[in-house]
Amino acid sequence: MTRQNKSQFRPVAVPDVELDGFWGKWQDAVCDSTAAILLDRCEKAGMIQAIDVNQPSPGIVIPIDEKWTGSTQMFWDSDLGKSIETIAYSLYRKPNAELEARADAIIDMYEKLQQEDGYMNAWFQRVQPGKRWTNLRDHHELYCAGHLMEAAVAYYQATGKRKLLDIMCRYADHMITVFGHSEGQIPGYCGHQEVELALVKMARVTGEKKYLDLSKFFIDERGKEPHFFTAEALRGGRDPKDYVHKTYEYSQAHETVREQQKVVGHAVRAMYQYSGMADIATEYHDDTLTNALETLWDDLTVKQMYVTGGIGPAASNEGFTDYYDLPNDTAYAETCASVGLVFWASRMLGRGPNRRYADVMEQALYNGALTGLALDGKTFFYDNPLESTGKHHRWVWHRCPCCPPNIARLVASVGSYMYAVADNEIAVHLYGESSVKAQLEGGKVKLTQHTDYPWNGDIRIDVDVDGTAEFGIALRIPEWAEGASLKVNGETVDLASSVVDGYARLSRPWKKGDVIALDLPLDLRPQYASPKVRQDVGRVAFARGPLIYCVEETDNGHDLNAFVVPQKLGGHRTKTIEGLNGAVAVELDVSREDSSGWNGSLYRTRPAEQVPATVTLVPYHLWDNREPGAMLVWLQTGK
Amino acid sequence: MTRQNKSQFRPVAVPDVELDGFWGKWQDAVCDSTAAILLDRCEKAGMIQAIDVNQPSPGIVIPIDEKWTGSTQMFWDSDLGKSIETIAYSLYRKPNAELEARADAIIDMYEKLQQEDGYMNAWFQRVQPGKRWTNLRDHHELYCAGHLMEAAVAYYQATGKRKLLDIMCRYADHMITVFGHSEGQIPGYCGHQEVELALVKMARVTGEKKYLDLSKFFIDERGKEPHFFTAEALRGGRDPKDYVHKTYEYSQAHETVREQQKVVGHAVRAMYQYSGMADIATEYHDDTLTNALETLWDDLTVKQMYVTGGIGPAASNEGFTDYYDLPNDTAYAETCASVGLVFWASRMLGRGPNRRYADVMEQALYNGALTGLALDGKTFFYDNPLESTGKHHRWVWHRCPCCPPNIARLVASVGSYMYAVADNEIAVHLYGESSVKAQLEGGKVKLTQHTDYPWNGDIRIDVDVDGTAEFGIALRIPEWAEGASLKVNGETVDLASSVVDGYARLSRPWKKGDVIALDLPLDLRPQYASPKVRQDVGRVAFARGPLIYCVEETDNGHDLNAFVVPQKLGGHRTKTIEGLNGAVAVELDVSREDSSGWNGSLYRTRPAEQVPATVTLVPYHLWDNREPGAMLVWLQTGK
Repeated sequence: MTRQNKSQFRPVAVPDVELDGFWGKWQDAVCDSTAAILLDRCEKAGMIQAIDVNQPSPGIVIPIDEKWTGSTQMFWDSDLGKSIETIAYSLYRKPNAELEARADAIIDMYEKLQQEDGYMNAWFQRVQPGKRWTNLRDHHELYCAGHLMEAAVAYYQATGKRKLLDIMCRYADHMITVFGHSEGQIPGYCGHQEVELALVKMARVTGEKKYLDLSKFFIDERGKEPHFFTAEALRGGRDPKDYVHKTYEYSQAHETVREQQKVVGHAVRAMYQYSGMADIATEYHDDTLTNALETLWDDLTVKQMYVTGGIGPAASNEGFTDYYDLPNDTAYAETCASVGLVFWASRMLGRGPNRRYADVMEQALYNGALTGLALDGKTFFYDNPLESTGKHHRWVWHRCPCCPPNIARLVASVGSYMYAVADNEIAVHLYGESSVKAQLEGGKVKLTQHTDYPWNGDIRIDVDVDGTAEFGIALRIPEWAEGASLKVNGETVDLASSVVDGYARLSRPWKKGDVIALDLPLDLRPQYASPKVRQDVGRVAFARGPLIYCVEETDNGHDLNAFVVPQKLGGHRTKTIEGLNGAVAVELDVSREDSSGWNGSLYRTRPAEQVPATVTLVPYHLWDNREPGAMLVWLQTGK
Repeated sequence: MTRQNKSQFRPVAVPDVELDGFWGKWQDAVCDSTAAILLDRCEKAGMIQAIDVNQPSPGIVIPIDEKWTGSTQMFWDSDLGKSIETIAYSLYRKPNAELEARADAIIDMYEKLQQEDGYMNAWFQRVQPGKRWTNLRDHHELYCAGHLMEAAVAYYQATGKRKLLDIMCRYADHMITVFGHSEGQIPGYCGHQEVELALVKMARVTGEKKYLDLSKFFIDERGKEPHFFTAEALRGGRDPKDYVHKTYEYSQAHETVREQQKVVGHAVRAMYQYSGMADIATEYHDDTLTNALETLWDDLTVKQMYVTGGIGPAASNEGFTDYYDLPNDTAYAETCASVGLVFWASRMLGRGPNRRYADVMEQALYNGALTGLALDGKTFFYDNPLESTGKHHRWVWHRCPCCPPNIARLVASVGSYMYAVADNEIAVHLYGESSVKAQLEGGKVKLTQHTDYPWNGDIRIDVDVDGTAEFGIALRIPEWAEGASLKVNGETVDLASSVVDGYARLSRPWKKGDVIALDLPLDLRPQYASPKVRQDVGRVAFARGPLIYCVEETDNGHDLNAFVVPQKLGGHRTKTIEGLNGAVAVELDVSREDSSGWNGSLYRTRPAEQVPATVTLVPYHLWDNREPGAMLVWLQTGK
């Protein structure tokens, strides 16, 4: 089926959005703490020395793992890339001469590192110089380049400085000569997807279609038979059967991307791949990709996603296992994977607003992803269980520090996920105190949201245009927002007739001073999982607006699993927790099982007695920001 | 407090019991299949070559793990020992000239292997000859000796051949010279307990107190400061901080055994230690050991034991974690650990019958341990989860094949756990179709049980004596057997007045033809765990008699977690499953959650609808003996 809607929605540039309120505070934490911390810790790990041609090569600092023949040190360029990207966004919000100088110095080092032909990689120039492009399957070479490309685009947009962008254009131009089907070219692609979506960013900021074409090449080649990874291994004298991850499903290269119907393998790889596919689907109006992506979307969100938007339950492959296998206490649910889900969801909006994607984007953003960052911006979760007995806490750093800069760059750039523009329409995908500037066919427009969202569902949007301008505004009405109401200049808009794919599409002549008032009821919503999720049967989670809630030991004492939520929900009250940036907590009347009376045995023939109790629910993304202790998302429910 | 009861109950020898019925069938499987299979697989692994001085040493067949500096090949003597022990018991039940010849040949090899001074160990004579007694902490040297001692005692009792017993006496005599506090002696003990309980068996069969004394030495030394393991490491040029298991809790050597109050570390090590302690407590009337053991017993059974009698939830240390941490799907619950719990429980009965121990012995025997053996005796579970999604199946063999011969020798010797004798009393700890011969002060006695237990709770015991004999018979009344009744020659015995510590103590003149009739009601019993067990809240398990039940996919289809057992138990019926040796299954009226109606989402605000359903429960120990599939012990319960 060919899609009728040929509109292409692209995210606005980060500097086109100003944020305050909820996200403003988070961005301040990144500006004030995280951005510098990332560089400090990269430097401490030896990453600066690794690219500085004026210093000796650090050599192999992180030992090579014999089984995969790689070292996480091979990813250092990506860590620097994501850190520079974070700094770029932070500089736009909060100029910081010292931080900018540190980033400039790194960029200067990269300039010196880059070879004549455009190639640039710290590991393969300074540690294993003979091995360039010899193991795309395992060694993350294009992945590293991709993150530096994203950094280059962000740094250019934020500071106007294009040195890194020029470097990465030269590198990308070099790649165009290296990869392809001509004699002497490599008909391959990276074992860790990333460069695909990065090249689209490069194309959009430079206007160079050749970068789109290279991205499309990598996507089209992936998984073709005879298999590139197999041929590459044989060429390198390696036995393809020795592949440490056993199956090419690990990197979603087991079949061509258009044939893929099941979300498998390493979760971050999957998300980055689907993001790149969605970008290419948007740019090329490629329905074959969109069809595959829609199937994969349902596969993920209907069979494999935590209620937090966390994905990839297993540590063993950092990824997917069986359908409906969603263990809570051992959930891997890597921060990067939910960040990647936000990336993918936002790109699924490229072919038009649809809350099927935007609702999940918001769910993953506020819960699975944001949880990765401490309130003060200084520590980080790598894996995100939905139950903890009290031993799970945020890290200062990680042996594989992919998550800290990933959640930091997402928070620092969240404005570009809130708004997207097509030729003559602006979509408001996410709500939050903010303003956005956009150039539409109908004219320049500025929208300003006034809201205490996500704590409160009242949203006022002020429209600012020169004179009058005719264009569309698409406002997401989340599926969960039962009873939502919308007014323009005080007049009620009939949602039943104006909502398409979950968005109120308001197209009319707008004038300065027009006011849109949207009310999204934030009732406490019990969440029941399908009985196919064995880990969640007999349990209930709670959501309020886009936020998933949890219970913490610090509010509720020991034995969180002893609380029983009655099936007919009891009374509940909201309260504000100042120590958590004014977060809204919920007190809920429940009962609690009494563990006394077992008399010297663990088991007995009668169930526990129940006594009335009150439980305090707090937003999941804020857990482990106060007294350390146990945490639980899925509470026992009465029948 | 000094205990008043100075009686010492010791298990009867295996050949003194004849079994039929339930255990008879299991023993036939061991005689007909397992016993030879064990030898076949030991041989295939290279274990025969390892001890045969007429063949070259096999060298290092299983690589040495760098972190613990050991190889599971170091345990090969123990595998052979447990296999010979199994064969010994099997030969008593079913003479088998071929099997006996194979065992004799192995014993001959050991005879040739044994050194002049009595030392005998395949690894440290043939692979690492320079390293004898240099790393007791890690290298299982005494552990291997212990298993050969147990084999020696069993082989002697079953066949009357004492060659292996003589070998092991010489080895034990050598140990007496090696270990001690005199100049040149080693003041140490083994990192893996086992030799302690083996030496007690040696002492009991030879009448040599010196073996008890050596056992007591090992027990008394354990955990003393300055720490032997630390001194040993330093002497060997190893850094004690590099200990792969981090803490001496792993081998229960973190403090002296009498100070220990918490069950910690490697589960099998713990069970073997407590077994040895209990034996020494019995033999020396040592209340200080008994006091420690009673504390440890409660610690284990009230805070750390699965409803199956499985213990040691974690694979990482093959052992214990936190109190009340009993994950079902990832339960390690090693077969050997439940076998060890049976060992310990039976030895806690040494100071007098008490169902506090015997009930758990039965629970661990029928559930945690027996599950390790397939109905045909040919395959083995190593770990015993209480929930499986269908991927857990018995192994043909294991890289560390400790469990197959361990469950096999327990099954083949189960008669000695059923009966124990003191000077003038015989205790019936377990029920089952069988007969036992014993010599008491009051005369020779033979008891014959006629029963279809555990499928049926009617037990008739025929007493056979020469003329009249006055002695005691102690009959366990399990705590779960509410409404039990007892008659002697048709006359009702008042249990309220005759039961001490859960045993009916019948002391009177007995004559041939006396009949004891015991009725243990086998009602289906729901089992609720304390709400402190987070993994079992909102769930119920089922027991019938000593058996824990489970549901299997083959009887009940997919999504076993969707069944909901009403709190007020619905109707239920028993039926016999011929394919499972006539096991009694239970059909129970329940409801089932409907997984339809989620409409393209995993989560919704309403719980699942429930529809009436019937669930078939089968004994847990028989799961995975039919069509492979999912299994579940703890079902959802209504509130």
